[in-house]
Amino acid sequence: MTTRVAIIGAGPSGLAQLRAFQSAHAKGAAMPEIVCFEKQADWGGMWNYTWRTGLDQHGEPVHGSMYRYLWSNGPKECLEFADYSFDEHFGRPISSYPPREVLWDYIQGRVKKADVRQYIRFDTVVKDVRFDSASRTFTLTAHDYANGQRYEQVFDYVVVASGHFSTPQVPSFPGFERFSGRILHAHDFRDALEFAGKDVLIIGSSYSAEDIGSQCYKYGARSITSAYRTQPMGYKWPKGWEERPQLQRVDGDRAHFADGSSKRVDAIILCTGYQHHFPFLPDDLTLRTGNRLWPLGLYQGVVWEANPQLMYLGMQDLWYSFNLFDAQAWFVRDVILGRIALPDPAAMRADSEHWRAEEEALQTTASMYEFQGSYIARLIEQTDYPRFDIDAVNRIFLKWKNDKKHDIMGYRDRSYRSVMTGTASVPHHTRWIKALDDSLEEYLRETAEPGDVKVLRPER
Amino acid sequence: MTTRVAIIGAGPSGLAQLRAFQSAHAKGAAMPEIVCFEKQADWGGMWNYTWRTGLDQHGEPVHGSMYRYLWSNGPKECLEFADYSFDEHFGRPISSYPPREVLWDYIQGRVKKADVRQYIRFDTVVKDVRFDSASRTFTLTAHDYANGQRYEQVFDYVVVASGHFSTPQVPSFPGFERFSGRILHAHDFRDALEFAGKDVLIIGSSYSAEDIGSQCYKYGARSITSAYRTQPMGYKWPKGWEERPQLQRVDGDRAHFADGSSKRVDAIILCTGYQHHFPFLPDDLTLRTGNRLWPLGLYQGVVWEANPQLMYLGMQDLWYSFNLFDAQAWFVRDVILGRIALPDPAAMRADSEHWRAEEEALQTTASMYEFQGSYIARLIEQTDYPRFDIDAVNRIFLKWKNDKKHDIMGYRDRSYRSVMTGTASVPHHTRWIKALDDSLEEYLRETAEPGDVKVLRPER
Repeated sequence: MTTRVAIIGAGPSGLAQLRAFQSAHAKGAAMPEIVCFEKQADWGGMWNYTWRTGLDQHGEPVHGSMYRYLWSNGPKECLEFADYSFDEHFGRPISSYPPREVLWDYIQGRVKKADVRQYIRFDTVVKDVRFDSASRTFTLTAHDYANGQRYEQVFDYVVVASGHFSTPQVPSFPGFERFSGRILHAHDFRDALEFAGKDVLIIGSSYSAEDIGSQCYKYGARSITSAYRTQPMGYKWPKGWEERPQLQRVDGDRAHFADGSSKRVDAIILCTGYQHHFPFLPDDLTLRTGNRLWPLGLYQGVVWEANPQLMYLGMQDLWYSFNLFDAQAWFVRDVILGRIALPDPAAMRADSEHWRAEEEALQTTASMYEFQGSYIARLIEQTDYPRFDIDAVNRIFLKWKNDKKHDIMGYRDRSYRSVMTGTASVPHHTRWIKALDDSLEEYLRETAEPGDVKVLRPER
Repeated sequence: MTTRVAIIGAGPSGLAQLRAFQSAHAKGAAMPEIVCFEKQADWGGMWNYTWRTGLDQHGEPVHGSMYRYLWSNGPKECLEFADYSFDEHFGRPISSYPPREVLWDYIQGRVKKADVRQYIRFDTVVKDVRFDSASRTFTLTAHDYANGQRYEQVFDYVVVASGHFSTPQVPSFPGFERFSGRILHAHDFRDALEFAGKDVLIIGSSYSAEDIGSQCYKYGARSITSAYRTQPMGYKWPKGWEERPQLQRVDGDRAHFADGSSKRVDAIILCTGYQHHFPFLPDDLTLRTGNRLWPLGLYQGVVWEANPQLMYLGMQDLWYSFNLFDAQAWFVRDVILGRIALPDPAAMRADSEHWRAEEEALQTTASMYEFQGSYIARLIEQTDYPRFDIDAVNRIFLKWKNDKKHDIMGYRDRSYRSVMTGTASVPHHTRWIKALDDSLEEYLRETAEPGDVKVLRPER
């Protein structure tokens, strides 16, 4: 009987899994019976922007945390697919930090070419997964909102590719229930123009805090105050942006901080991270982890050790992203195809614990992306995913960190060279801070016309 | 064996069910084994205000659609419990339109007195309900977030009391994906002060539209534009509030309406209603209905005809509310206790269809609440729930409608007489339009001190 594989999610991870199987099939391997369940009406996961927040048209939690005007916050040279380059997709060099729509277009280019859309059931949410140990199969319960019905289907393998940037971690602070402005989590942040002219308080000091604060600044917020728990981000912020220690409480519209200072604010944006959340899984199949480089329980970062018919993609704290998902998906594919044999549970656990011990010893930032690079290299050497120069990518990460340190509002104007093709990226026609229109059309416009910057700020 | 009853939700309906069983028990009946599953950390359902929107701290959809500064939009004399009066709770007459916290206090008063909190498992979400036709039992899967575990439990009856004002109906309009302000559903509306000084577009023409628009007006919005699909609400709106026909599209920050007119707006609030949504139920146990007076499939409005061990409370379009839930809960209790015998399925269906035909013939507004009153009377005559003068309540509904017609911004200053106790309500110490502080403490303050109105508008 044909092996039956369920993939949960058609974002970058799930699409990588589809592409991995299609790639083997193109070289003569048998294609398993694959069903990819996708909650949204289109593919791309987080990169499929929606204006919706909270619950979607079906009453399901909105997957997207993507906001308008998002530009990649890391060089595209660090996430490039090894089997589908930016050159192949765009036919000419582009800049190193493209906006959301450009990256979505790139992701789609590969899977359109691979013709894998046929495997995806859109508007379909996996509600429940049960494993039967007698038959050693999973029964998935899916809700098909397009046809308004729920059904069960049996699979031999389940690949969880639902991501970990959809379920917000939302702390409460004293006074929130009587704060008079908007309080939102980064997950619900959409359009920075909503905050033009406002005094915005950002809670957090990681990527969301840095980038959402930057968006608000760029689109005209009156001031940005970001509150950190342990240490400030420490960038050279532009005028109007200051860092304060942890928020203690809110009194009316006044925020009070751990240093005794206070400030009147209009809106509070909780950039407090996301939960690994799998509401469709029973306890014994559920990965429970914080956002870290080496979650325990996953052999080679993907195989659920307690039941190796269950796989997880992309659950690590991510420096690498698209090509990490690829390396994982190719490995998972080869486990499912029987090309890679798994050791016994004790050996899998020992292996994971070894990596975890290494992870825990990491001290420097550079050692962290190098660790993740080594992990990717280990996966790739076991499959036919195209090799690439991981040391070179690590060097781009180093440059990126330095460029940010040097100029947090200007680092996206820097250029790097592709590890996959050797192509040097070209500067974008407009500096990031001035580029208010983030559309694909505007991005691909060939020539910068001086002064031709569309002003998106609303008229008053 | 003791009968096992699961109640899903500890809002007004679920609490009515607990009170119904406790009331029979106090008079000597056996108490079934009852578990009430409540997603939130406290009881009161919608009346338990939360500042949270979207997903809660556990990653579950936020139940609450309650906003700050909400005052009852119907006279309290129409929703009074027949077994626990406002007089008993507050010890003195209060006004006819109390704010949210006052009503929450009242709801809690009865169930504290009845000592039913012991039956409730808080922070616990029902994820799945399965019926086994061999054993004729339900297996519920619950996720206990307090202890981070999922478990199953078997019941003879399931009472669905999860409400139908939690899952928004969220339409999209052309241009939403590029609108530069906030777009939200009424479900996510919290503090009207967020919209002070703004031009607010309200989509819809029912209770949410009317009341959220009024809140925004009261707390300082610059203008309110409400767009209707079929007909305008037609109230005498204050200066700054106008009605327009249906929204066609949004172009930047400009809304275009069906009459060809357009207007620049800062925020769009979708007051477009809610879905009956039961993500924990399989298809064959799921009530599918719009918001109407007589949903089909429910014998006497509560018993799931296709499987009479399943009950639904409060799923009707509501004129009556708290005492309607009571009448239903007492009836459900007596079915479960074997005091009321159910006819065969065909007879149940015929009965429902008879009521549905009547519902469909209703023409006037008055005939609608009278229809619901007759339904309540029919339920009450079959149980020991205290009788009350339903015609008198209908007369209050009529006055209420006229009072609104006369003065949409002033109707909450009117007073009515309790049908349960004969007590005349007293005017609140401050006119609604001036009463910016909606706290219980402020509400119960004995004397109006002229000019003593707290100004909640934020300083600029």
